[in-house]
Amino acid sequence: MEGSRDTAISGRYRRLAEADLPAYLAGIAATRERLGGAPSQWSVTEVGDGNLNLVFIVKGPAGGIAVKQALPFVRLVGESWPLPLSRAHYEHLALSRQWEIVPGLVPAVLHYDAALALTAMELLEPHIILRRGLIAGTRYPRLANDIARFQARTLFLTSDLALGAAEKKARIAEFAGNHALCKITEDLVFTDPYRVAEQNHWTQPFLDPIAAEFREDLDLHVAVSRLKSKFLSSAEAMIHGDLHTGSVMVTGEDTRIIDPEFVFYGPMGFDTGAMLANLLMNFLSGPGHERHPGERAAHGEWVLETAGTISERFRSGFLELWRKEARGDAYPQSLFAGDRGEARLDIERQAFMDCLFVDTVGFAGAKIIRRILGLAHNIDFEWIEDPRRRAVCEARALRLGREMLVNARSFGSIRSVTDAARAVARWTPDFAG
Amino acid sequence: MEGSRDTAISGRYRRLAEADLPAYLAGIAATRERLGGAPSQWSVTEVGDGNLNLVFIVKGPAGGIAVKQALPFVRLVGESWPLPLSRAHYEHLALSRQWEIVPGLVPAVLHYDAALALTAMELLEPHIILRRGLIAGTRYPRLANDIARFQARTLFLTSDLALGAAEKKARIAEFAGNHALCKITEDLVFTDPYRVAEQNHWTQPFLDPIAAEFREDLDLHVAVSRLKSKFLSSAEAMIHGDLHTGSVMVTGEDTRIIDPEFVFYGPMGFDTGAMLANLLMNFLSGPGHERHPGERAAHGEWVLETAGTISERFRSGFLELWRKEARGDAYPQSLFAGDRGEARLDIERQAFMDCLFVDTVGFAGAKIIRRILGLAHNIDFEWIEDPRRRAVCEARALRLGREMLVNARSFGSIRSVTDAARAVARWTPDFAG
Repeated sequence: MEGSRDTAISGRYRRLAEADLPAYLAGIAATRERLGGAPSQWSVTEVGDGNLNLVFIVKGPAGGIAVKQALPFVRLVGESWPLPLSRAHYEHLALSRQWEIVPGLVPAVLHYDAALALTAMELLEPHIILRRGLIAGTRYPRLANDIARFQARTLFLTSDLALGAAEKKARIAEFAGNHALCKITEDLVFTDPYRVAEQNHWTQPFLDPIAAEFREDLDLHVAVSRLKSKFLSSAEAMIHGDLHTGSVMVTGEDTRIIDPEFVFYGPMGFDTGAMLANLLMNFLSGPGHERHPGERAAHGEWVLETAGTISERFRSGFLELWRKEARGDAYPQSLFAGDRGEARLDIERQAFMDCLFVDTVGFAGAKIIRRILGLAHNIDFEWIEDPRRRAVCEARALRLGREMLVNARSFGSIRSVTDAARAVARWTPDFAG
Repeated sequence: MEGSRDTAISGRYRRLAEADLPAYLAGIAATRERLGGAPSQWSVTEVGDGNLNLVFIVKGPAGGIAVKQALPFVRLVGESWPLPLSRAHYEHLALSRQWEIVPGLVPAVLHYDAALALTAMELLEPHIILRRGLIAGTRYPRLANDIARFQARTLFLTSDLALGAAEKKARIAEFAGNHALCKITEDLVFTDPYRVAEQNHWTQPFLDPIAAEFREDLDLHVAVSRLKSKFLSSAEAMIHGDLHTGSVMVTGEDTRIIDPEFVFYGPMGFDTGAMLANLLMNFLSGPGHERHPGERAAHGEWVLETAGTISERFRSGFLELWRKEARGDAYPQSLFAGDRGEARLDIERQAFMDCLFVDTVGFAGAKIIRRILGLAHNIDFEWIEDPRRRAVCEARALRLGREMLVNARSFGSIRSVTDAARAVARWTPDFAG
């Protein structure tokens, strides 16, 4: 499926340069009108700072657009690591579906060109990447609500609780061709950090002992392998697949979730866990950025509270949808008729959410570890210049991540997770000096 | 996918009659040669006694073939219940895959005609349907080994333990169009027996109170709904989907698993549970067929021993494959290197099999209940003429089935299941008179 899609694409595909954009965009009504004026008035800047793609910002007299073009390889690594252009198809499809489910929480797509693996979207301005905002110490009052709403609606409404089985199977098939992107996650999140792998790196020499320990820690290997199996075989919902703080653009008034190119039908907890992991990492990186001790304590508390609020509102939002919009084939209403049935079903709904929370904690643990010992790191930690100081923060995160991964069930609530984060932030590893 | 497949089919599709077969089969080298002689020498008999299709037995001077043609509706119910012809495609595909994995344990396909939704296979002769053989009190010495081998190889070798993730996703997509057959299972196994449904029937009046009780039993409804969710979302392996004793043809020397038209990527425990359920039902139906008390006790013990042997050999066979042929993406070898790693992985393998056994017990419970309170019944019970006597056997099976479904985890081994079956066989319901 993906193979034939790529073959079809390859004919007309060419990598666009900044200079190519005006003529291209002038030929499309939606982008021409959004930009306004004449193509000669349009400014084009390539800004892609992600790992995979080209991203152009184009501005005209009437407005701006963002143009994302997939490259046939992983940008972060180079042409030695090929990656199918078909991911642009899956991303565009995911954005369209998400727009239907949570209009206004994802960028609006103006144009999709399958041959060029290119998507033109509304320019999100003056939005910045959430991760940068959090590192800068900015608070976003709408954030928790918007993220929780995105998670609850996209996961519930694409699951068996909301869809008939035939439609859900068709959707699983629709995204099954995106396996190359899934494979990146399978390798980089669930495998490489736990073995010798060329692309792994970490803050040396301080984390050398922990990295070695994790490569020998068989309880950890079992736990991460169980999650990998779940990632491989649990087609619970259409998941974003990369829902970290770098995939969210924000202002004080607006939240947009971007970059769903890792989309496929997978376990819900992978999305909820990704966001939790990244907020915990931001919290634990805080002291590394302080010029005076305690300077970031209040912001850190806000970040943890945000993680708590997201978790609680995700739960209540998902449950509300289940009570009101359960049109799927799972848990048929007819088996839980009347007040007695509804009461019993509600107990089961809570049990379902508890299981999903265990998944969330486990996946979050895996996402933390991969960002410190694996290939792709977070600027939350990377921007701490002093390696020893950075390693102190990272060691705390690894300790928390391991606990979440191996003993996910012992965290009965989001409060116990954020409390564990507070506790580990008070721990000082030996090498702190 | 399935829709377009059916549209493509509809043009040339026509329901074949016995008289059409010789001319049709004479035009195909594989069937012409298998039958031998001239078409005028070929005898054709329609023998379909299943629920869904036409089945013709054709015999010629050189040999025989079985021809299976899908009808565009459920034969058992009639044209009011349409069912897509595409199921013939999925069945043929499953038979081909199974033949690669367990050659000789499924019928060899000689010819497949997509337009006619028709498959011509080798005639299995003098095989009979296992269920009939068991009811007749026949022992099959190869049975346990062959069934266990079929289950272990087809499930392991199509799972993430044996396949790379990209190939597995492609296979999931390949079978996703078979949703109409899945829907039958979703409704008839996991839903209807627990609610008022027109097609439900049971041995009246004796089972009326139990049927009513099961419709109000919310613990049961929760348990069956959890299994339904697993059936809807766990794409663990290519499962047969209907692996009961009516889908096995046997002689003393040969075992063939037939009719995989319910194939899709689903939970492994559904297949292992189906076989277990049907052996337990045969055991519990035994006393209903006795002319003298205890007459079938020895055969019943053999049936339970067979269930035990299948379970144990399935486990050991699956584990052996995992130790020797684990080429898939799950549980990567590199995370369990060396003796210490291998030892830890082996503990995890046992834990994996324990979880799969819990699924097996639960699904088996659901399969028992649907055969007594739902639409499709088993001749094991149906052939007991006296309704009171039949109901006694069925009530025992329902009691066992409920316990297996609701308390699956309490059955730590196959021995505890067969012991529970022996115990329930000693229980006499009130209405026994």
